[in-house]
Amino acid sequence: MSLVHPDRLLPADPATRDVARRLYAAVRDLPIVSPHGHTDPAWYALDEAFPDPAKLFVVPDHYIYRMLYSQGVKLEDLGIPTRDGAAVETDPRTIWRRFAGHYHLFRGTPTRFWLDHTFGTLFDLDVRLSAETADLYYDRIAERLATPAFRPRALFERFKIEAIATTESPLDDLKYHRIVRDSGWTGKVVTAYRPDPVVDPDFEGFADNVKAFGALTGEDTSTWAGYLAAHRTRRAYFRAFGATSTDHGHPTAATADLSKADAEALYAKVISGKHTAAEAELFRAQMLTEMAGMSVEDGMVLQIHPGSFRNYNKPVFERFGRDKGCDIPTATDYVKALKPLLDRYGNERDLTIILFTLDETSYSRELAPLAGHFPALKLGPAWWFFDSPEGMRRFRELTTETAGFYNTVGFNDDTRAYLSIPARHDMARRVDCGYLAELVVKHQIGEDEAFEVAHDLAYRLARQAYKL
Amino acid sequence: MSLVHPDRLLPADPATRDVARRLYAAVRDLPIVSPHGHTDPAWYALDEAFPDPAKLFVVPDHYIYRMLYSQGVKLEDLGIPTRDGAAVETDPRTIWRRFAGHYHLFRGTPTRFWLDHTFGTLFDLDVRLSAETADLYYDRIAERLATPAFRPRALFERFKIEAIATTESPLDDLKYHRIVRDSGWTGKVVTAYRPDPVVDPDFEGFADNVKAFGALTGEDTSTWAGYLAAHRTRRAYFRAFGATSTDHGHPTAATADLSKADAEALYAKVISGKHTAAEAELFRAQMLTEMAGMSVEDGMVLQIHPGSFRNYNKPVFERFGRDKGCDIPTATDYVKALKPLLDRYGNERDLTIILFTLDETSYSRELAPLAGHFPALKLGPAWWFFDSPEGMRRFRELTTETAGFYNTVGFNDDTRAYLSIPARHDMARRVDCGYLAELVVKHQIGEDEAFEVAHDLAYRLARQAYKL
Amino acid sequence: MSLVHPDRLLPADPATRDVARRLYAAVRDLPIVSPHGHTDPAWYALDEAFPDPAKLFVVPDHYIYRMLYSQGVKLEDLGIPTRDGAAVETDPRTIWRRFAGHYHLFRGTPTRFWLDHTFGTLFDLDVRLSAETADLYYDRIAERLATPAFRPRALFERFKIEAIATTESPLDDLKYHRIVRDSGWTGKVVTAYRPDPVVDPDFEGFADNVKAFGALTGEDTSTWAGYLAAHRTRRAYFRAFGATSTDHGHPTAATADLSKADAEALYAKVISGKHTAAEAELFRAQMLTEMAGMSVEDGMVLQIHPGSFRNYNKPVFERFGRDKGCDIPTATDYVKALKPLLDRYGNERDLTIILFTLDETSYSRELAPLAGHFPALKLGPAWWFFDSPEGMRRFRELTTETAGFYNTVGFNDDTRAYLSIPARHDMARRVDCGYLAELVVKHQIGEDEAFEVAHDLAYRLARQAYKL
Repeated sequence: MSLVHPDRLLPADPATRDVARRLYAAVRDLPIVSPHGHTDPAWYALDEAFPDPAKLFVVPDHYIYRMLYSQGVKLEDLGIPTRDGAAVETDPRTIWRRFAGHYHLFRGTPTRFWLDHTFGTLFDLDVRLSAETADLYYDRIAERLATPAFRPRALFERFKIEAIATTESPLDDLKYHRIVRDSGWTGKVVTAYRPDPVVDPDFEGFADNVKAFGALTGEDTSTWAGYLAAHRTRRAYFRAFGATSTDHGHPTAATADLSKADAEALYAKVISGKHTAAEAELFRAQMLTEMAGMSVEDGMVLQIHPGSFRNYNKPVFERFGRDKGCDIPTATDYVKALKPLLDRYGNERDLTIILFTLDETSYSRELAPLAGHFPALKLGPAWWFFDSPEGMRRFRELTTETAGFYNTVGFNDDTRAYLSIPARHDMARRVDCGYLAELVVKHQIGEDEAFEVAHDLAYRLARQAYKL
Repeated sequence: MSLVHPDRLLPADPATRDVARRLYAAVRDLPIVSPHGHTDPAWYALDEAFPDPAKLFVVPDHYIYRMLYSQGVKLEDLGIPTRDGAAVETDPRTIWRRFAGHYHLFRGTPTRFWLDHTFGTLFDLDVRLSAETADLYYDRIAERLATPAFRPRALFERFKIEAIATTESPLDDLKYHRIVRDSGWTGKVVTAYRPDPVVDPDFEGFADNVKAFGALTGEDTSTWAGYLAAHRTRRAYFRAFGATSTDHGHPTAATADLSKADAEALYAKVISGKHTAAEAELFRAQMLTEMAGMSVEDGMVLQIHPGSFRNYNKPVFERFGRDKGCDIPTATDYVKALKPLLDRYGNERDLTIILFTLDETSYSRELAPLAGHFPALKLGPAWWFFDSPEGMRRFRELTTETAGFYNTVGFNDDTRAYLSIPARHDMARRVDCGYLAELVVKHQIGEDEAFEVAHDLAYRLARQAYKL
Repeated sequence: MSLVHPDRLLPADPATRDVARRLYAAVRDLPIVSPHGHTDPAWYALDEAFPDPAKLFVVPDHYIYRMLYSQGVKLEDLGIPTRDGAAVETDPRTIWRRFAGHYHLFRGTPTRFWLDHTFGTLFDLDVRLSAETADLYYDRIAERLATPAFRPRALFERFKIEAIATTESPLDDLKYHRIVRDSGWTGKVVTAYRPDPVVDPDFEGFADNVKAFGALTGEDTSTWAGYLAAHRTRRAYFRAFGATSTDHGHPTAATADLSKADAEALYAKVISGKHTAAEAELFRAQMLTEMAGMSVEDGMVLQIHPGSFRNYNKPVFERFGRDKGCDIPTATDYVKALKPLLDRYGNERDLTIILFTLDETSYSRELAPLAGHFPALKLGPAWWFFDSPEGMRRFRELTTETAGFYNTVGFNDDTRAYLSIPARHDMARRVDCGYLAELVVKHQIGEDEAFEVAHDLAYRLARQAYKL
């Protein structure tokens, strides 16, 4: 058997599958444009070999360890480091075997698709991962990771990545981006401006972050004007390293449009630490509108990724820290939340704001009607828990009829799992071609149009929307 | 190629498509019953030729210009008039070319289906609209619009419209309906009572409207009793012009059942203009219950169309006025909202209240359980943003299992785009036949039953529910 | 024709149907494990013949009479008893004919599937129910019900029920369970602990119930400590009759984790009857957490069935009493609601909490992410209004990609309609096999894996999750 059947994810109906195959064949080998993600710029800068299979695939991947954890596997037994340094499993082969023995848990999940794709295409594995095949896998992967062909830059070229964006805090010195830039290597790796640490008063160390932000930019961040100037300065610095976008991971999509005096007073309060929860929320809200205004000035694309209740599991957070697989989506309002920003900047034809959601109810009720009207708005692809065949399909079914294809921006892989990037783009291409094939077979669009849209969704729209 | 393939929108699976074709063939040519819509009664009264292609298709159609606007086309450049009379594009061919050059934006949207259907069936066009074919289209359409066969009454007969309802304010004199009635023409055109201008305290000119309402009816609308009497008088007047229904477009589905004294006091407040936002909401809520009570008396069907945030885009509203393509749906509760009205009138077996929604999450959670229990409640079809293949399909999938087919009321086109009426009914018939075909092929109902249901959904239920 | 086509509910696509047939053939005849339901233990204890067709099928089935009621049939005319003893229809054949004459209302509903399955497989009927066939049906059913083969225990064996749970109040003496246990009959019938009458301050007679609870257990339920002890005592009593689970039907999923002092004070208030609505809600919330704590101690599975607005129709409630087909789902939050309980017990690997919902928007947004992370959480199957082909399908589509199959617990029939139990399990098996077949045909899982999962979903997971 093969782990990567040529028809996987294509529609079951034979006539529809035939159309989908033709469409997919035309986009399968297009370059990858990855305008939003979380790979480590050090990989591209230093071009070192990846460590062992467990540290590459299991330990950093919250999709994997949250599923194992849900079924009773301890995070310690998977090598997830504790905050207090308490001992955890360190033997990579032991971790790998634990993972392999639970591989059946991933049936029907996108993780299974990504992994099988990676195992099949990069490591030429053709038996399924299981307790029995764990060592075969481990040895094969470990062997290949040691070869030059599996270094980050070689993979970048093998993956046909035309451009990739990482995501950094304004406090980051972009050292690795500098190394890449100065190295002479031609791979296009750009940064993106993610200012949550200096924008969200609830972020750990916010007040100190704001001070550091001042020091770094030479602005007086004890004042509202200086703080805004620091953002402008730092955005320009990021642009010098190729950044074309900013990103904002707020708990809600709230925006505000305060008077200058009110904004100054609010800023004074939040940097003093004496703010209420509502004031923190209002400050984040105001900052989205400020960021949109700066985007009008400097052309950077504004991404809003709202609606995640971060670090929801208190005992896990206390023992293992942030981002350990227990972020949970919440119901998210966009209509009332975005109005202040949209009243101010929504009709700007040269501004691009890309909206994401973890609340699929908003696709047809709020996001498609908003993006189908406001010149400044576009819809980001199905995100996080919905970066999956059914999730992507619902995205198209629920947004296309109102917003069309051209108010969407192609695919984001949004990943830190470097080896899965081709698999993720492949999934999106397959699902979109399947959706388009159904429109063709139901005589809603012509096949010639479907070829054009398939190319747009796989490649052109991401380049265009993100100016890459 | 043809713009109107005989199998469009039918299921892809061959066996299912075969059943769907048979069902559709049986309902394709049924007369059109259009119990709710926004066509202009002057058309039927005066029977004048429609103006040019741009004024017919582009300028009045918010589905079209909202999509073009979202992609950076200025409303001025599409000939949308400004409130202050600032100059806008007036050349219809220029407007038409702009539209044609963006026709690809509509791929996958219902607008594309409606337009292709209209272009193909009424104008015998068989090449796709594009920048290249813009003039061919313009000339063909302009030529035909000048012929007698394209006058409103001729089209009415060509479309096989058995009955159509328009929608008027209580302040409307129904002049055009009178002309139609007195003309001897046999087309059945009725009005519907849409009292928002005298029911919604937030409506522009509400207090003046209420005064005019008194003058018009000879009732003293400075008192609660006189105001209610004015409604009764005006409803009777509308019934004399064929009206069988009322319609209410409130921001929420809130209802109330106040004591007479409380209602009187509230009415005094809202007509004085000294009410709060909550009091305005409470007044609208009370009026839905009052209207239901009058419907028990006079047999008029009550339609509730809630949940649209009207004129959401402030700069567009200020420049172009109401209804310019920027209404946005909001999350809508029905369960708590409707309880006061339902406690009072929900068990009336001779009352018909038709519920619509712009929040699809309510279909299976709230609307189908409510309509599947209360004798007075029925579900209106998928509405506005959901008047589309996927939207109609979700409506059936999410309501049928709990409410069945017979607590729904067939199709409403709800349109002011007269030429699209056959296309809209055709879409509904195709989608419903496809849905029924799947039930047949999965052996959930017999094909004989599917024929009966298809006929009910395409024709009989609309007549029956709206008493037309 | 046959009422029970062998392929019913299987996917239309021929290749997919072939796979689905093979999967279904492998699970069709597996024993039934029914871990949650509302059958009457007296049936198994006394093993008496069921009464006439109307009393068996129509009078107790709210799915049936709510639909008839929605279309204008009076509940009195269906023999539903009034609270004040006012006369209602008593002739079973008349009731049956009324039902039969409206059978078309159930087209496309799960009720139609359950009934046709029951009529076809148990009563060998092969014409459709209608006004014309009403008497044929009535006579055939009445005749069979009089035979020994249609007694509850004989049907239990015919249905291949391996285990079934009923649901009782803590105040129930479990008399019939005792009779079953002492009878020597080998059928496995267990109870489940449903303490709403002594946990919900809004329950009719709550204060008296709590007193009776004390008397029954010999604990002093005037104190918080005594009340908790009474629960522990009664849970143990229920376990002696096979109970492995508790069940909680609260209006919301709210949980709390109060200090002992606060809980004591709150308890004093609610048993005094002087609580506010918010305090009643807080008490229910606290009790879910208390129940979870007791489950950690005694191993009982905790089921949460939230989100129903019970007895919504006031006039129907006043005339006919509780549970008369007018419960309506409401929007339900889980993320914030469950946090107190989850912070306390969510990471317990030996605790099982099974979550249900009537708000399908929570599947992908909240429930799958929660169950896909917390060791203590599992997802119950599609419930009540969603115990249907489309409902079950949406459950899989919306949960599998994030939670996988193994954080779900197989099927619950949740019914009091004994004769429909095989039909309900059959529906679930068919829908799940159809879903799995699509994963196979789209090359997402191997057919060998699909066989294993089909068996798990039809049989193994229910046994395992409920410890039966």
